[in-house]
This record gives sequence, C-alpha cells and structure tokens, in this order.
Amino acid sequence: MIITGNTRLIAHLGWPTESFKAPMIYNPWFAAQNVDVKVVPMGVRPEAYAAFVPALFDMTNLVGALVTMPHKVVTAGLVQHLSPTAAIAGACNAIRREEDGSLTGDMFDGDGFVQGIQRKGFCAENARALVVGCGGVGSAIAASLAAAGVPAITLFDTREQTAQALAMRLRRHYPTLEISLMQKDPQGHSLVVNATPMGMKPGDPLPLDVNRLTPGAYVGEVVMSQTWTPFLQAAMARDCQVQRGTDMLFEMIPAYLKFFGLPVATPEQLRERAEIRE
Amino acid sequence: MIITGNTRLIAHLGWPTESFKAPMIYNPWFAAQNVDVKVVPMGVRPEAYAAFVPALFDMTNLVGALVTMPHKVVTAGLVQHLSPTAAIAGACNAIRREEDGSLTGDMFDGDGFVQGIQRKGFCAENARALVVGCGGVGSAIAASLAAAGVPAITLFDTREQTAQALAMRLRRHYPTLEISLMQKDPQGHSLVVNATPMGMKPGDPLPLDVNRLTPGAYVGEVVMSQTWTPFLQAAMARDCQVQRGTDMLFEMIPAYLKFFGLPVATPEQLRERAEIRE
Repeated sequence: MIITGNTRLIAHLGWPTESFKAPMIYNPWFAAQNVDVKVVPMGVRPEAYAAFVPALFDMTNLVGALVTMPHKVVTAGLVQHLSPTAAIAGACNAIRREEDGSLTGDMFDGDGFVQGIQRKGFCAENARALVVGCGGVGSAIAASLAAAGVPAITLFDTREQTAQALAMRLRRHYPTLEISLMQKDPQGHSLVVNATPMGMKPGDPLPLDVNRLTPGAYVGEVVMSQTWTPFLQAAMARDCQVQRGTDMLFEMIPAYLKFFGLPVATPEQLRERAEIRE
Repeated sequence: MIITGNTRLIAHLGWPTESFKAPMIYNPWFAAQNVDVKVVPMGVRPEAYAAFVPALFDMTNLVGALVTMPHKVVTAGLVQHLSPTAAIAGACNAIRREEDGSLTGDMFDGDGFVQGIQRKGFCAENARALVVGCGGVGSAIAASLAAAGVPAITLFDTREQTAQALAMRLRRHYPTLEISLMQKDPQGHSLVVNATPMGMKPGDPLPLDVNRLTPGAYVGEVVMSQTWTPFLQAAMARDCQVQRGTDMLFEMIPAYLKFFGLPVATPEQLRERAEIRE
C-alpha cells in the first residue's frame, strides 16, 4: 500500500531507532486490511523530547504515537490523562489525542507480558516473581503481574530509589501484595523477568546470576533487538520456560490497535504477516 | 521497500495534504535505488507551523522537508540561511539541517517551471511574461524567469502590496528588468502563468480572461490537484503551448534530490516509476 497525501501516520518515538520492530508488524496488517495508516520511526533524543511531543500532535494526519526507550517514563508527565495502568507504571508507551486536543497516555507493556506468559500456561496464583529493572517497562510488568493476582514480587534496580518508588505505587493499589526490595537472586522465584536493557548490545553482562534460576521457572525478557538473548539462552539451558521480547510485543499490539481505534488483530494474525525474522 | 527502524524520513509539510503528489514520485525512485528513505505527508495548520518546524528538525532520522502550501512564505522566516533564489522569492519549498544544527531553506519551484518551458522550446530572450499570483510559487517563478533573461514581467496579485513587494525584490537584483504591475490582461504576453490556487477546487473561477490569450503563447500552471485544469484546457483550445503543474513538479525534483544529498534522477526516470496518473 503506497504512501499518498491521504496516508495517516503513527509516530514510533524512541532513540536510537535501529532496533524498532513495530513498523514491520503493524504496516503489513494495515495493508492487508486496506487501512491507509503507516507506522514510521521518529528518532528523538531525550533532551528534545518534551518539546517534540506537543508539536507532533499538531499534525492533522497523526493517528497517535508508540513510545519506546528512553521516553516511556517522561511521557507520563507530558500527557493530560493517564490510564490506571500507566499511572501505576509511571510510564506510557502509547499516546493519542482526544477531540478537545488533550493527550491521553496508556501503557500496554505489562499486559502484553502477562498475556503472553498466561497463554504459555503460567499461573499467577502462588507465583513469586522477580522483576529486575524498574524503569517504564519493568514498572508496567510489575503492575500487570499484581493485577493478575501474583501474591509476591521482588523488585531490583541499580537505582535504589526507582525500585522504592515503584514499591510505593504498587502498595497503594495492592495493599496485600508482598514486596521484597533490592535483591536479584532468582532462587525461589517461579517467574523471573529481565526488564533492563542488558542484552541489547553484544557483550552486555547478564542481568542476574542465571546459575541460581530454578528449573521449570518462567523466564521473561523485554529486550527485542535479538530474539534469543544470552539471558534467554542461559535460561533454556536450565530447563526454564521462556518468553521473548517479541512475544510480549505481539501480545500487546491488539490493545494498541484498540486504543487507536484501528482494526484489531490477534497476535497470530500479526505474526503471519510480520516482516521480521524471529 | 518496507519501513524499518533504519528508514529515514523526508517530511512533506503542507495543509491540507490530500492532493500531495511527492510521496508517489520520490518513494518509487528511492526504492529503485535501494535508498532507505520515505517521503511522508505531515499536515500542519498555519497556526501550528512555526513551532512545528524546529521540533521536527530535532528528529535524528529526518533527511529534510518538502514545503508546500500554505507554508512556503512563512518558512523563509523560520530558517537561518536562505539561498539567493529563496531570498528573492521570499519563500522556501525545501529545508535541510546543517551539521551545526542550523536550518537552510531553498526554493525550486521557479527553476522547475523555467526548466520545463525551456525544454518545451520557450525562448527567454524577448519574452514578455505575465505572472498572476505573487505568493511563494509566483515569486519564485518570477525570480527564475528574470534569472533566465526574460526582459519584461507583469505581476498581478489580489493583494496589491504583495505584488509591489515582489517587484521591489526583483528590481534590487535585476535593475534592467521591465516590470509592470497590477494588470492581468494576457494580451501581448508570450508567457502567461497561473500562480494562484484557482483551479484546485471544482467551480473555481479562471485566474484571468482566457479570451485575451495570444495564440502560440506559452501558458503555465502551478495547480497540481488536477492534471488539466480548466485554465489549461482553455489555453489549449486557443492554440497555446501548455505546461502542467506536474511538469513543473517533475522538473524541480532533481534539484531537491541534490539539495538533500540523495541520488539524483532525471524527470524522465522519475516519471517512469511514479505511482500517479497524469
């Protein structure tokens, strides 16, 4: 489907842009549905982002924006309305403009992650989860795990205050949730999540000590720049069930499409057409 | 050629966007050359434009911008450097970012127009030209006609000051140019140009009295939303040579490509691949 003057855009905001996957997943779906919308990458550095967003939403043919690293947390402060999920996560990965010109932010990372592991058979009740990395995506996953009924979560971030702030937001909404802080030993956890960028670059250290993983535990990854990160490979070698970053991505897209008022696809329908190799 | 995280964008700025042709001309050429660049429409209303441009140029994967109505004149005041053509025209249809972060504006409408009629056999020496409409594109055409050696130009605009201001800028650069003002009778003119938007909408009045056209005169049009405007049809019925808005468009694209540092195509190479009907 060619680009014309009638084409509407979804801005894919992040920096750097090279590892973006969304254009190759959304655009084939739109073409198959005869929807004249294109996801296009827009690289914006952190220092330019706060001025970029309101200007971008003055575009008359903009459907909305997908937000990725490093802008998810900042976005929560740039929109006028936050969904409950985005408020707990303290981060947004989606922005749309309302009819009155105000901006609404939502966050689908966590729901995508939880949908994916539940579809693989993960049972939230009685689970003990470890979330390493409490930035935008880690916060969203923790929030969605709590919403799914996980009774105990351990949070770790190299910035101690970030982990503590997330714990406070979680406690406010889930007073009975058992929260442990600032340890990242996976031993005794039935779900272990890497929500740090470790694994994006070759030579990155592993996010935690994989030798302490419990065999049979669910291990999830948010990094998408490579399909099987060293962390996931190590987890598989220890007989863990794994979820890739791209699994989470495909699982959250139906929610995005609904948010933008576009024809909704299942993860399978998206995968069938996607122009990426997994 | 699919859109990925490596794709760079050329923003096509204007409003409304529906009649844009550039995406369907540039994008097939880039695909044929394996150049990972896409022209995408960005509709921006006049009141939002001045804030939009500097924000847009913070994008890390932006090649530059094509500027069309109604932003050409305003753009000249938003960039730090103007080419001589853009300075005389008082308008820009192209913006790029220099390495130091400053913006340069240029204007290729006029050169495209003149290249096109010269290729059709128009001889600038001894020509008397009438330019109806002295906004961005009319100013650029007048400037390029003067540069090509046309000795006499008549300028008309419904806003008298706009025509006078253009006459002043022309006189400064071409002191021997004979300029007549504020009449739009085509009689006695060997080149007649519609540089108004008349003809974009069905039912628009003709820009001038076609009954007064001299048979054999060259008649040019800037409107591109329809290929054969009522004005061009009337001119052809009076045995005039004609140049369509899209002819001007194809003729100016090589200059645009050079300005952006991209592989240059001839108008013929562009036409061969373009996804528009003329």
